[in-house]
Amino acid sequence: MRTIDWLTDGGVRIIDQTRLPGELVYLEVRSVDELVEHIKSLAVRGAMALGVAGALGMALAAVQAGPDALDTELAEAARALTGARPTAVNLGWGVRELLAARAAGADRAGLVERALAVRDADITTNTALSRRGAELLAGTRTVLTHCNAGALAGVAVGSALGVVAELHRSEPLELVYTCETRPLLQGSRLTAWELGRLGIEYRVLVDSAAAGLIVAGRVGAVVVGADRIAANGDVANKVGTLSHALAAHRAGIPFVVAAPESTIDVSCASGADIPIESRAEAEVLSLAGRPVAAPGSRACNPAFDVTPSDLITAIVTEARTIRGRAGPQ
Amino acid sequence: MRTIDWLTDGGVRIIDQTRLPGELVYLEVRSVDELVEHIKSLAVRGAMALGVAGALGMALAAVQAGPDALDTELAEAARALTGARPTAVNLGWGVRELLAARAAGADRAGLVERALAVRDADITTNTALSRRGAELLAGTRTVLTHCNAGALAGVAVGSALGVVAELHRSEPLELVYTCETRPLLQGSRLTAWELGRLGIEYRVLVDSAAAGLIVAGRVGAVVVGADRIAANGDVANKVGTLSHALAAHRAGIPFVVAAPESTIDVSCASGADIPIESRAEAEVLSLAGRPVAAPGSRACNPAFDVTPSDLITAIVTEARTIRGRAGPQ
Repeated sequence: MRTIDWLTDGGVRIIDQTRLPGELVYLEVRSVDELVEHIKSLAVRGAMALGVAGALGMALAAVQAGPDALDTELAEAARALTGARPTAVNLGWGVRELLAARAAGADRAGLVERALAVRDADITTNTALSRRGAELLAGTRTVLTHCNAGALAGVAVGSALGVVAELHRSEPLELVYTCETRPLLQGSRLTAWELGRLGIEYRVLVDSAAAGLIVAGRVGAVVVGADRIAANGDVANKVGTLSHALAAHRAGIPFVVAAPESTIDVSCASGADIPIESRAEAEVLSLAGRPVAAPGSRACNPAFDVTPSDLITAIVTEARTIRGRAGPQ
Repeated sequence: MRTIDWLTDGGVRIIDQTRLPGELVYLEVRSVDELVEHIKSLAVRGAMALGVAGALGMALAAVQAGPDALDTELAEAARALTGARPTAVNLGWGVRELLAARAAGADRAGLVERALAVRDADITTNTALSRRGAELLAGTRTVLTHCNAGALAGVAVGSALGVVAELHRSEPLELVYTCETRPLLQGSRLTAWELGRLGIEYRVLVDSAAAGLIVAGRVGAVVVGADRIAANGDVANKVGTLSHALAAHRAGIPFVVAAPESTIDVSCASGADIPIESRAEAEVLSLAGRPVAAPGSRACNPAFDVTPSDLITAIVTEARTIRGRAGPQ
């Protein structure tokens, strides 16, 4: 299964994540405009997958550009893709990779080649960090994870869920707890779906049930992804991550962050420097499209929280294992 | 506003909580069977309110019993009321209070009088513990609470939300954060509704967002109710309470439990002795019959968690303030 891929006749194929977990539908995307719409609608989502979408979108623009319009079309595509989700840093990164290749003299074929390299690097990177994480946690039989840091957030291999899959490969896991991840339920919708496909026994939890299970000794380790890692090792990840880290610390079990090196942002000295996106209040005030809160209510809806490095046992990347309290620099 | 009350012409009046927060509807209940149905459907809910429902239900049986059938009718009502929600300890307690009054010789009028005393004691108790809690937290401008320990869970005064209301009375609170409380959303439905009626500025949070706000210094104190308190001061409360306590401990802010003395169960030496109810998986996997999780998913749905006494700043009851680490005995 590949979340996003290149079609050899010059197109992009994506899994329509808005149809999951109900059905697995692949979409063939034949224009940059179409791809932009699918990015906006979250048909393709997840930091790593969006980086690849940026690169493949630029390749699509390249193969479709008229004889003398390559640079104009690339500039136009770069603007449209980057604007599709302005806060997704990886999307812009994938676009810039292709602009840099063009600036270095790549032609149409060279640009496609560069985009495929970005795609393949995502797989290699996540495979490497997944193995490193599984080695670190060898022997763990019960894992808890949060949100979706799975194959659906990358090309074909997840980060946190990649670690879970690797662990399961060496010796079947007893149980994985996946927190539903309010407000958008990526855990109960996407991670649960992936765990089912991997043949791993799992249970969905409301997010707030995790601490009780962890402190009661029913979880062997917590593994999560990361949205941004500061120079001192503080980790910004999906809201709810911090409370799992606090519980894991209390219980004395490993709390492991699995993320590519590209997630490390040395321009942020600590977690306090990482901006926390506030999302729409409606995400909290309704559930699956249905209003749930008292009429007239307002919500506070931070998308991320910051886990201080002293609560983190280790950060595993494709290149290294960074022990807690030791910043990545 | 009274969640449950006695009608002088011999009936029980309740707020239909299944209609909240959409509309405030009062129901006049004229038979024990009707009351049992309303208890089963959660039209009336909350530990303290259910204790009063047990007592008033028995009074209803008494005033309606035929001339020679008082004891038969009381026994029948006791069985039906207690069976309506077998795990609600307060419901059985309210019923037993009336059986004890009858055993001590009370007639119809005496039984009604005893039921009204149970009702009034709930108000007195919650008023007293609310004042004690507000005194303890004097000067706090921002409070976070969980689930619904409000007027809707008692007769007219809440426990945790009673503390919030008292604090607000002395000096307007800046903001109250109410966690939505998955899976049944008592926070976004009921507590938000109560805060609106109290004229207190509030924001609804997904439960997992609390830790980030607390650790970031945006919350002055956490106040929650309790379902059961062990002899060593460990507190069982709605699932999610523990993670707020861990975050409050990390941030160094007060974590206060507000609950009547009747919540203390000295037969439980510690939290490990408190049984944790597992509720239906469907509560997590669907919303109003609509599935939200991946097909075939199973859930783990503990209704409560246990907060160890060393994370608790104080337990306030109507009679005393128990400091953290000091058990109630």
